[in-house]
Amino acid sequence: MSFTIDFQPSGIRLLCDGPLAIAEAARRAGAGLRSVCGGKGVCGKCLVRIERGDPLPPSAAERHHLSAEQLAGGWRLACRVMVSANASVYIPPVSALEVQVAQTEGAEVSVAPTGEVRIVPLAVAPPTLADQVADLERVRAALRREQGIGEARAGLATLGALRTALRSSGWRVAIALRGDEIIGAYPGAAPPPLGLAVDVGTTKLACYLVDLQSGQTLAATGVMNPQIAYGEDVMSRLEAALVEPAKATRLQQEVAQAINGAAAELTATLGLMPEHLLDICLVGNTAMHHLLAGLPVQPLAVSPFVAALNSSLSVGAGQLGLRAAPGAQAYLPPPIAGFVGSDHLAFLLAAGFGRSEPVRLGIDIGTNTEIALQTGARIVSCSTASGPAFEGAHIRHGMRAAPGAIERVAIAGGEVRCDVIGGGSAAGICGSGVIAALAEMRSAGIINARGRMVAGMPGVMREDDDMPAFTLAPGGEGRRAVCITQHDIDQVLLAKGAIRAGIDILMDHLGVEPARIEEVVIAGAFGSYLDPRHAMGIGLLPSVPLERVWAAGNAASAGARMMLASSACRREAEALAGRIEYLEVTVVPGFNRYFSQGARLPAGS
Amino acid sequence: MSFTIDFQPSGIRLLCDGPLAIAEAARRAGAGLRSVCGGKGVCGKCLVRIERGDPLPPSAAERHHLSAEQLAGGWRLACRVMVSANASVYIPPVSALEVQVAQTEGAEVSVAPTGEVRIVPLAVAPPTLADQVADLERVRAALRREQGIGEARAGLATLGALRTALRSSGWRVAIALRGDEIIGAYPGAAPPPLGLAVDVGTTKLACYLVDLQSGQTLAATGVMNPQIAYGEDVMSRLEAALVEPAKATRLQQEVAQAINGAAAELTATLGLMPEHLLDICLVGNTAMHHLLAGLPVQPLAVSPFVAALNSSLSVGAGQLGLRAAPGAQAYLPPPIAGFVGSDHLAFLLAAGFGRSEPVRLGIDIGTNTEIALQTGARIVSCSTASGPAFEGAHIRHGMRAAPGAIERVAIAGGEVRCDVIGGGSAAGICGSGVIAALAEMRSAGIINARGRMVAGMPGVMREDDDMPAFTLAPGGEGRRAVCITQHDIDQVLLAKGAIRAGIDILMDHLGVEPARIEEVVIAGAFGSYLDPRHAMGIGLLPSVPLERVWAAGNAASAGARMMLASSACRREAEALAGRIEYLEVTVVPGFNRYFSQGARLPAGS
Repeated sequence: MSFTIDFQPSGIRLLCDGPLAIAEAARRAGAGLRSVCGGKGVCGKCLVRIERGDPLPPSAAERHHLSAEQLAGGWRLACRVMVSANASVYIPPVSALEVQVAQTEGAEVSVAPTGEVRIVPLAVAPPTLADQVADLERVRAALRREQGIGEARAGLATLGALRTALRSSGWRVAIALRGDEIIGAYPGAAPPPLGLAVDVGTTKLACYLVDLQSGQTLAATGVMNPQIAYGEDVMSRLEAALVEPAKATRLQQEVAQAINGAAAELTATLGLMPEHLLDICLVGNTAMHHLLAGLPVQPLAVSPFVAALNSSLSVGAGQLGLRAAPGAQAYLPPPIAGFVGSDHLAFLLAAGFGRSEPVRLGIDIGTNTEIALQTGARIVSCSTASGPAFEGAHIRHGMRAAPGAIERVAIAGGEVRCDVIGGGSAAGICGSGVIAALAEMRSAGIINARGRMVAGMPGVMREDDDMPAFTLAPGGEGRRAVCITQHDIDQVLLAKGAIRAGIDILMDHLGVEPARIEEVVIAGAFGSYLDPRHAMGIGLLPSVPLERVWAAGNAASAGARMMLASSACRREAEALAGRIEYLEVTVVPGFNRYFSQGARLPAGS
Repeated sequence: MSFTIDFQPSGIRLLCDGPLAIAEAARRAGAGLRSVCGGKGVCGKCLVRIERGDPLPPSAAERHHLSAEQLAGGWRLACRVMVSANASVYIPPVSALEVQVAQTEGAEVSVAPTGEVRIVPLAVAPPTLADQVADLERVRAALRREQGIGEARAGLATLGALRTALRSSGWRVAIALRGDEIIGAYPGAAPPPLGLAVDVGTTKLACYLVDLQSGQTLAATGVMNPQIAYGEDVMSRLEAALVEPAKATRLQQEVAQAINGAAAELTATLGLMPEHLLDICLVGNTAMHHLLAGLPVQPLAVSPFVAALNSSLSVGAGQLGLRAAPGAQAYLPPPIAGFVGSDHLAFLLAAGFGRSEPVRLGIDIGTNTEIALQTGARIVSCSTASGPAFEGAHIRHGMRAAPGAIERVAIAGGEVRCDVIGGGSAAGICGSGVIAALAEMRSAGIINARGRMVAGMPGVMREDDDMPAFTLAPGGEGRRAVCITQHDIDQVLLAKGAIRAGIDILMDHLGVEPARIEEVVIAGAFGSYLDPRHAMGIGLLPSVPLERVWAAGNAASAGARMMLASSACRREAEALAGRIEYLEVTVVPGFNRYFSQGARLPAGS
């Protein structure tokens, strides 16, 4: 029997099939709950309050970490408390993993829905032999009378839905409107006005069901981008699409179908269907944008990597193969450049770029790392080919930030301590773990200033191929050990070099010294796990006071949800896109010097 | 080897595969040439002037009918002169079959193209590594600079075409625009701005290729409506669509493909393709409109026969499966009611209804006959179920107005003379022929005032089933005789009763006496062949002075072409549609009395 868990204050809802721990539910839902010890019940940091639901009595671990007053007030440890029926769970700020941008920023900026899209109930006069006025004109008359809407328009698909709905409900319908355009018609009572925000990632599609009236996120889910079967990185997708036009069509259809699947799953939590979606906002890198839109990608695959457009696109959802209300449009915010997508724009929007004017650095680390630097009214963005090292590729035991990945490393007194996502044994190491390992190994003297592993240090050994390697987690019971090799370090320093080169080029371009930077915003789960001290320790980030670094969490999704619910946010994003200056770092004089400089470990580290 | 024949002054062009007579070419092209003797070379009425081309020397018949001066001036008889290479042929008014509405009315009303849709050449600056601005923004900049267009928009499909065109022509393209929206992009020099007007008939699709800059019709063709395989009349098409949804889809696709085929044939005359069509205007009865638009037709098949909309529809041509420029829209003028379509509106537009305010009667005879009566500012339209008798169905030897059909009949001194379409022997009789036969038989006393055939009159015999019949054309050499039976007369009187009932109801509704009617306009080929004396003789039309009756020819097509080239005409048509009051004749008190009265032969006839 399925049931739902609501997380507060985010409003994210998860549909569950069977009993599970709140911590696991929070992870699945992307609700952003801290998991310091990885769910072992030892750190006591995953404090939550059960507001509704009927959990089992507190475990020994909970009784150990929590006071009697806390337990009486409903406070529990998320990793210990199991639920098997509908529940509502409050995540207090102290346990929140990510800065919930849509929430925290929501207080400053108006993300109040602007309400262009709405649903109204309508009683329409049925026709008679003596009154054969057409369906649309009857509905118009009722809208004029009951809603004061002058001359409602309707597209072809909507007219068909209207015709059917009117006759299947005794001429009592719910009419969905965008401005004065009829975009959907449903028999009987009015369903809530729903929208879908999707962050179309190269790897994952993060999908959010939003109530367009309240602006609240009702449910969220993440599904794999099925295009991954055509290649893991952007370039191999583009190449696949270029080999034969039919493949480009297939890439388009597969991602649309994956979104439809997620939409069906999300709307089903309300007993509804994707056809109830009245609006859609899709963000993504420029390649994902073009593949989803069915735009020719050849110019994205060859220098100078030019996008089809730098403006927003509103297109019938059906044109993209997306299930939605017949007149629903999909809004695709402007791509900034060939390698700086609308996800970057959504990140900057959610992080408040352009709204106020401090000196700000925004970084979204991935195979391509997008970096933006704002000073005063100017915002310059660039992309650097940092490669997939921080996503775990080309790293001996690298993996994505998924259960089993070492996400944090501490080396003290010769002892190595690793935090593993989801708890349990280490299966590999993810980006933030690699950075932590590097920084800690450098601090412990296991790596020297030139980035070479020091032979003879405890834990450093030679692999079969004579490659030096440092063991982070020993193997056992058929499990392999997880280690960092010299080659891994070289890869990470190359990636770091590319990112730091981008940062330094932007700072020099705008004449900004590190000391002037008031904010460093890091997007994505990577930013949430990343320890700023480690990032500065290896010179990935310029040295700024620690408290100026913050993680924006899934900021691209937050930006997408803002634009979904609010046309004011769309206009703000479009204005922001118009202000962002794209800088091609590879043509900046001295690029190679920046790069080799950036790849070095800081002298003092 | 194919060649073309241009007809002047209409500008209609025919693509020919082999040698043929000008008269036959004119018939195929719908160029509206008289054919009194049916192409036998005996009447001398099909006078044309060969303006370009290299015909064979004059035949004996031509030397008999034409003076030496005429022959020297290029005048010939269209039925005698063969052409086998490109030719231009002038049809003088004296030989013109139909009043060429688009031409004659063009003088009064402005059908000057309004030029929203146009093509401009554009040189776009190619991108560089240092200037990666996107395609659309580059084109916008060029349009701003060269054309003064502020902020050009583009839809998804157009963006794709733009992207490809820019790169296949060294960034020199032709940009098609509708207002400030880019709707097409072509590599290299600008093709002419083309549009397609289609009268989607239940039986035939009449397609016209129009230059949107000059408003001139460049070529025309007629193709069968392939939906005919699903039933000849509207109701059987609707029923086919209702049996299974897949069939409705197939009906939609088949008519779209037929239009695409005609578009390919027409654009090929200029060496171009349907993708060069920048605008499309489609008129038709409401069932054809809904089937083509893919709108649910169930409410059209059951009383009270309500249309989906009474307003115009502008829809992406691609959405209808029509080949055209990526951003081209198909314009579908408003249907007036379930049984009064946009073809009726186009007819009234072309015939000048609403533009001036005489008392006018407009009639388009078919299985359903649409009738409009205007008096002052009021225009009332109705539809009557006249049945297919005038289209040849349910008539023993009935057939459509096609070669072999008796189109005119004269009975004088006991002798019967028939005009057969295309000349040759009579194979059957079409609507205008049936009316002529009835009127002439009544005049000759072969039919009495109650519509009964008088036994014993010359030519009246008994058929095997004891049915009285009158022979119009004797058989011979294996050919059957063509005759009119008592049953045929009964059928025609029923059809006439329905039409006349509609006319009388409208006249009574608006308080109009026959003497006040200043114009009777009859649409279609039927109107062109119909002898007004015969129509009044049998009481199909109220008695008005003969010169007040005129044939509007293919007026629905003319109206469609007007709306294609001119947004002013679209607005005029929409305003006209808003003014037309639909009257449901079956709910008018005394409808049955009107009907039985209308079915009678006039007392004095």
